[in-house]
Amino acid sequence: MKHIINKESISSNLILGALILGLFTISYTLHSQDSQLPVKPNIVVIFADDLGYGDLSSYGHPTINTPNLDRMAYEGQKWTNFYVGAAVCTPSRAALMTGRLPVRNGLTSSKVGVFFPDSHNGIPANEITIAEQLKSAGYATGMVGKWHLGHKEEYLPTNHGFDDYYGIPYSNDMDHTGKITSMEDYFGRYTDTYEERTPEEFNVPIIRGTEVVERPAQQNTLTKRYTEEAVKWIKDHKEGPFFMYLAHSLPHVPLFVSDEFRGTSKRGLYGDVVEEIDYGVGQIMNLLEAEGLDKNTIVIFTSDNGPWLPTGISGGSAGLLREGKGTTWEGGMREPGIFWSPGTIKPKLVTGIGTTMDLFNTFSNLAGVPMPTDREMDGVDLSPVLFGNEESPRNEVFYYRGPELYAVRVGAYKVHFITEAGYKPNTRVEHDPPLLFNIEEDPSEQYDLAKKQPEEITKIMKVVKQHNSKMVKGPDLLIDRG
Amino acid sequence: MKHIINKESISSNLILGALILGLFTISYTLHSQDSQLPVKPNIVVIFADDLGYGDLSSYGHPTINTPNLDRMAYEGQKWTNFYVGAAVCTPSRAALMTGRLPVRNGLTSSKVGVFFPDSHNGIPANEITIAEQLKSAGYATGMVGKWHLGHKEEYLPTNHGFDDYYGIPYSNDMDHTGKITSMEDYFGRYTDTYEERTPEEFNVPIIRGTEVVERPAQQNTLTKRYTEEAVKWIKDHKEGPFFMYLAHSLPHVPLFVSDEFRGTSKRGLYGDVVEEIDYGVGQIMNLLEAEGLDKNTIVIFTSDNGPWLPTGISGGSAGLLREGKGTTWEGGMREPGIFWSPGTIKPKLVTGIGTTMDLFNTFSNLAGVPMPTDREMDGVDLSPVLFGNEESPRNEVFYYRGPELYAVRVGAYKVHFITEAGYKPNTRVEHDPPLLFNIEEDPSEQYDLAKKQPEEITKIMKVVKQHNSKMVKGPDLLIDRG
Repeated sequence: MKHIINKESISSNLILGALILGLFTISYTLHSQDSQLPVKPNIVVIFADDLGYGDLSSYGHPTINTPNLDRMAYEGQKWTNFYVGAAVCTPSRAALMTGRLPVRNGLTSSKVGVFFPDSHNGIPANEITIAEQLKSAGYATGMVGKWHLGHKEEYLPTNHGFDDYYGIPYSNDMDHTGKITSMEDYFGRYTDTYEERTPEEFNVPIIRGTEVVERPAQQNTLTKRYTEEAVKWIKDHKEGPFFMYLAHSLPHVPLFVSDEFRGTSKRGLYGDVVEEIDYGVGQIMNLLEAEGLDKNTIVIFTSDNGPWLPTGISGGSAGLLREGKGTTWEGGMREPGIFWSPGTIKPKLVTGIGTTMDLFNTFSNLAGVPMPTDREMDGVDLSPVLFGNEESPRNEVFYYRGPELYAVRVGAYKVHFITEAGYKPNTRVEHDPPLLFNIEEDPSEQYDLAKKQPEEITKIMKVVKQHNSKMVKGPDLLIDRG
Repeated sequence: MKHIINKESISSNLILGALILGLFTISYTLHSQDSQLPVKPNIVVIFADDLGYGDLSSYGHPTINTPNLDRMAYEGQKWTNFYVGAAVCTPSRAALMTGRLPVRNGLTSSKVGVFFPDSHNGIPANEITIAEQLKSAGYATGMVGKWHLGHKEEYLPTNHGFDDYYGIPYSNDMDHTGKITSMEDYFGRYTDTYEERTPEEFNVPIIRGTEVVERPAQQNTLTKRYTEEAVKWIKDHKEGPFFMYLAHSLPHVPLFVSDEFRGTSKRGLYGDVVEEIDYGVGQIMNLLEAEGLDKNTIVIFTSDNGPWLPTGISGGSAGLLREGKGTTWEGGMREPGIFWSPGTIKPKLVTGIGTTMDLFNTFSNLAGVPMPTDREMDGVDLSPVLFGNEESPRNEVFYYRGPELYAVRVGAYKVHFITEAGYKPNTRVEHDPPLLFNIEEDPSEQYDLAKKQPEEITKIMKVVKQHNSKMVKGPDLLIDRG
C-alpha cells in the first residue's frame, strides 16, 4: 500500500493529516484490497471544446496525430464510455464544475443552448464548485481558458473557488462584429472551407482575474498562451497540492492556430488545432515529469461535448458513434476520457461508464473533503477503477437536452424517449415505445431492440421513475438576455 | 547502422551473406541515411478476415479490448492509411500473395466475388507468391489458416511456395449443409442475432499439406488451434529465417469462439472472436520475446477487407470510414495495418499510404531477392518508412471491384467513377464528373469537392490514363464453376 503525501501538508497539517489518513483507512477497507489511493494528489483537468470522440489518433482518427494524448492513454487509463453532463457548452461545464445535472440548478434551457454576451445570469452563488471543494482542503486552484458559466464579475471563476483565472468568458465565436442573419449564414462560414477568420471578427475579451486585459482576443495564439499560462501557474504552485483547470476554447469554430502549427496536420486546419492542443498536453506532461510531480499529479483529458457536425470540414468526428454536438445520441455526449498518473493510475482500457460529474466525487474523496449533503449530487467516486481493479460503480447515464430527459442508459442498454438533430428545425421525434439499443454491442446505435427485448425497457423505466421522483428542476437561468 | 543477422546464416552462408551485405550496402545508399535495414528478418503476417478498420481498441473501438494488438501498435508502427488489394476475400488474398492487382491475373471477377467449393480454378502456376520469393532466399515458409486461392491440390499453399500448410481452403460459411434460398435468407441468419451456428452446418474441411484431416472443421476451436499451430511451427523453425502466414478464418461469419472466450467481451460474440484472435497475437509476441527473436522478426497485422455490414450485429465496424466489405469506399478497403519489431521498426503513427501488395516488395528487399521483371508489379518497398524516417513512397491506390476500376486515390484526393453498395442489387451509380474527396481532411467521404476543385480530378485522370495504358487484364478465373 502506497501513500503519496506532500511533505509540506504533513508538517503543517499534522492533525488534519492524521484524520484524513484515518478516514482513508476506513475508505480503503470499504474499497478493494488492491486500491492504492493517493492522498491530496495534484489535479490537472484539460478540457477541449467541441472535440469529437473520434478526433484523437488513440481514439481512431487516421490523420490527426496526437502523440502526447496517445501516450497518456497508453500509460494511463483510456476510458471509452466517458460522458459529459450535456451536449452543449454551458450545461456541460456546469456539470463538470458542480458534479450535478444542470437541470437541477437552471444552467440549461429548452430555449437557449448556452450563455451569450447579453445573458444576465451565471452560476448561482450557492452552487459548490470543484474548485471550492478542493480549496477547502488546502489546494491552490487555478483556471486557464473558457469559462462559459457567466461573464459578469460575480460569476467569474475567481468568485467561484479559483485563486487565479486567465481566459475568455464565453465561446470564441461570440461577440461577432458582423451581422449573422441565420443559422445557415452561420454554418456557411465554416462548412466545406478552411478560410481562416480574422480575430477582429469576434470581439471576445480575455480576462485576467476579473479584468479585461485584451479585446478582441488574438485567438491565433490562444492555445499556445493558455498552455504557457498553465505551465507557469503549475511551476508557481509546484509545492502543491494544486488544481489546474485548463479549458481550451478550441477546436470550437472559428478555428485558429499559431503560426508554428498552421499546415502541419493532414487533417487540415481542424487537425492543426487539435495537434497544437496535443502539443500543449505534452508540455504539461514534460513539466510534471521534469519536476518529479508526475506520480503525485493526476492529469485528466476530455472535452465538453461532441463534434459540431453542421460546420462540416471545420467540425470534428465522433468516430463510430452516431451524431454529434447538441444531440443525446452517443456522438453528442460521449468523449475521450484519459486519466494519467504514471505508477499511480493503473494502465488499462476502461470500458465501464464514467462521467465528468464523477470528478467532483473522486477529487473530493482524494482530497479528504466530505461531499455536500444538502443537495442532490449526480456523481460517483471513480477511485476504485483509477487506483484499484474494480469495475466502475456507475451504471447509469441520464441524457438531458435542456430540462428534458431525452435518453437513459442503464448498463449496456440505452433508451431514447425523444431524438432530435443537433441543429435542424423540426427534427424532434417522440418515441413510444422508446428506441432501445445495446450500445456495448452496437455502439453506433443502429439496431433498435425495442420489439425484441421490451423487458429491458421495463427495467430502465424503473430507474427513470426513481430518478424522476427525486428530480427538482431549477428555474431557467439562460433565458434571461438582452 | 545496425545489421541484424542470424548467426547460423553467417556461418553456413558466408559467401552468400557477403554478397547480400554488398547488395544491402548499395540498397542502403539508395535509401536514406537514417535507414537501418534488417537483413533476412523473420516475418510473421497475421491476417484477419472481414475485420473492420474500427474493430481494435487502438483503432477506436469502445468495447473490443485488444491489448496485444494495441501494444503492437504502440511499440511499433500504426498505419492508418493501409489498404488491401480488393474489398472481398479471394482477390484481396491474391494481391497479398502476389504483390499484384488481381485484375492482372484473373483472380477477380465481375460475376462471382470469390472462389467457391465448386470452383474449378485457383492461383495460376506462373504467379510468383511471397512464399516462393522468400523460399528462394532460404526462408522456411509456413502457412496456417484460410487460403482461398483454389482448393484443388495443385492450387494449395504447399504447391505455391509454402513448406507447410494447415487450415481451411475457403471461407468458413461455405459448404453449407442446409439450403440457402437467397441473400436475404443468408443475411437473416446473422443480422441482429448472436445465435451461434453449429460447426456441422458447414461441411468445411481442414487440410494439412494437401490432405483433408478433419471435416466438418470444428470451428469453435479453430482460432485457438491456428495460434497453436503457428506457435509450434515458429518454435520448430526458430533458427530462421522463417516466414509464417497466419490467416485467421474469423471474424468472418459464422462467428465461432472457444469456450474460454465465449461471453468475455462487452461487444458480444463478435468481440469475443476478435479478442481471441488478439490473445493469439499475444501468444506469438510472447514466444518471440521469450526466444529472443522479437528484434529480428517483423510481425504484421492486417485484415483482408472491411466489415461485412449486412450481417448486422455479427459484422464489424469500419469506424469513421464509409461503408464496408465489397465496396470501394474507404470502409471496404482500408484496414488496420500494424508493423512490430521492437528496436528495429521505429515506433510511430504512419499516415502515409501502404498496401498489402507492398509487402511483396518490402520482403523481397529485406531478403535480398530481386523483384520479378517479366510482369507488372503493383507494390512499392515500405522499408524507408519502417526502418527510416522517410515518407511512404506510395502515392496512389487503385480501387478495383472485379475487373473494373471504381475509384483512384492520388495523395490526399480520391475520385469515385462508380459507387455501389456491398450487397444491395441495383445500387450501382456511375459518376460523371466523378465524385472527389480529400480523404485526409474528410476521411468519412462526406464532402464532394468535384465542383470546387475540378483541377484535382484532372490531375488524377492523368494518373489513371497512365495506369490504364499498361493494364492487361487477365481472364476471369472465378467464373468457371459447377
